Amino acid sequence: MTLKAIVIGLMATSVLAGSAIAQDQIKIGVSIPAATHGFMGGLNWHAAEAEKRLEAANPNIDLIIVTADGPADQASDLEDLVSVHGIQALVVLPFESEPLTEPVRAVKDSGAFITVVDRGLTDPSIQDVYVSGNNTEMGKVSAEYMKTRLGEGDNIVILRGIPTVLDTERFDAFMAEIEGSGINVLDNKFANWNRDDGFEVMQDFLSRFPDIDGVWAQDDDITLGVVEAVKAAGRDKELFIVGGAGMKEIVKGVMDGDELVPVDVLYPPAQIATAMDVTVAHFVSNGPVRGSYILGSPLITQENAAQFYFPDSPF
Amino acid sequence: MTLKAIVIGLMATSVLAGSAIAQDQIKIGVSIPAATHGFMGGLNWHAAEAEKRLEAANPNIDLIIVTADGPADQASDLEDLVSVHGIQALVVLPFESEPLTEPVRAVKDSGAFITVVDRGLTDPSIQDVYVSGNNTEMGKVSAEYMKTRLGEGDNIVILRGIPTVLDTERFDAFMAEIEGSGINVLDNKFANWNRDDGFEVMQDFLSRFPDIDGVWAQDDDITLGVVEAVKAAGRDKELFIVGGAGMKEIVKGVMDGDELVPVDVLYPPAQIATAMDVTVAHFVSNGPVRGSYILGSPLITQENAAQFYFPDSPF
Repeated sequence: MTLKAIVIGLMATSVLAGSAIAQDQIKIGVSIPAATHGFMGGLNWHAAEAEKRLEAANPNIDLIIVTADGPADQASDLEDLVSVHGIQALVVLPFESEPLTEPVRAVKDSGAFITVVDRGLTDPSIQDVYVSGNNTEMGKVSAEYMKTRLGEGDNIVILRGIPTVLDTERFDAFMAEIEGSGINVLDNKFANWNRDDGFEVMQDFLSRFPDIDGVWAQDDDITLGVVEAVKAAGRDKELFIVGGAGMKEIVKGVMDGDELVPVDVLYPPAQIATAMDVTVAHFVSNGPVRGSYILGSPLITQENAAQFYFPDSPF
Repeated sequence: MTLKAIVIGLMATSVLAGSAIAQDQIKIGVSIPAATHGFMGGLNWHAAEAEKRLEAANPNIDLIIVTADGPADQASDLEDLVSVHGIQALVVLPFESEPLTEPVRAVKDSGAFITVVDRGLTDPSIQDVYVSGNNTEMGKVSAEYMKTRLGEGDNIVILRGIPTVLDTERFDAFMAEIEGSGINVLDNKFANWNRDDGFEVMQDFLSRFPDIDGVWAQDDDITLGVVEAVKAAGRDKELFIVGGAGMKEIVKGVMDGDELVPVDVLYPPAQIATAMDVTVAHFVSNGPVRGSYILGSPLITQENAAQFYFPDSPF
């Protein structure tokens, strides 16, 4: 029996019962990593905002957000969402792909509609819809901006994240786009998507290279460390930095015309809200909700920054 | 100035004015080819359904659907949507890619958010978000089903659409998937996505091949013609047919356990509703709406057919 058939069946039952309003409710579980700061903190905030908005707009939708401290904790959350809450759909951002694949398959086997966010499962056939950022476009858009500011003979350094498929996609797309521009990449080093490593790696770059025109930091946490190192070295008038994600402090700076970090490239923690939107649409819309929704990575500039600025989010 | 800033600005203005509720309205144009039957007739119906639903759920959203009889007519519709209606967003299914590219660019230049559906523009950088079916998956899913029913030494025939990129994507994906299965493709021929040509091509196949176990018709209009030819030849117990799209008569048959056309493969006219949903979400959601939303082509079986059946649609 399809989900819609179940819902129609339940609605018929509740009409017959004459009261049982609770049976009209469509329960949607949302399982994400717990966090109060950083990218995942922003993602938690956006999930809570989307819950408020979607429940207010759709009285028959009940969203249940559960946050986990690790893969095993998340697997147990998924079991509860089925056995305790009886969810009809799941929105899940898996902690890790491999250990969550079978737990999500079990939810699917219970008959629930499955929306996977950001990190894919080992078996993509489990999901009904996939919502994710676009790392390739992120690298490409960053390089396109570099080319508008720099040319033949100019020097840049690159701070990378953690050695992962995701990082490689960003890096390869960036390198492909600047090829032939004459821009020199002096060096690239991993900075592990955190501020302290960003600071250290950039200190090293600054001591080794007397002439740097641009920095691709590819991540806003790394960018914070890079900014600190550049200012400490008094070289903030010589170069500019391009980060990535859409951290509110960075977006605010872009909005205010900061020259050291003049733009940002979106890789939105708010993608969880997009995933919740399409999952609700599966139950309320005549439009199909299936397939793959790969979010763009637009360049955030002073002109458009306002639409990417969420002052109340922790990120 | 961003769209959201404009909206916030307008809202502030209307508060100051104390009345002017009309200024709160967000106007979204929806431009599609006019049709009363077939796939495009279904698309027109789903657009009207989505308009009713979305306007009821979002009092500040005003959707304006305009239908065109050809590319020139559609280009003039787009001009009116900007100059007469002052739209803040456009959902457009272009009649043809080339002649509509510059007209859509002009709408973009007016500051509107652009959602392109199904047929891409010559310059994809114009669109903010792209919503489309998945022809490659459609071919693959159809072949996967064939492999569950047929094997080594079984014979099939294939009816194709019109020689286009779209048709080639479907065909190549189908052929790649059945490779190595031992299924023989006796012949493939274009049937121009219509019933009459489906009938004629199938008549020819039936007269030339005494042993046919399966037919991939890849389209529900073609399928209607194939069914007619097969029944006229009295060979409807020897074979089965796989079409594609999600025509209500075919989906109803699948639901009722038809053995001649036991399944269908989704390429949904309701994608226009999905496109309208995400465009409205751009204005009401905290989740980003950017990028590429490629809808899946699930196999429609007796089990799940109810959720793809719209008895009131003309298609």
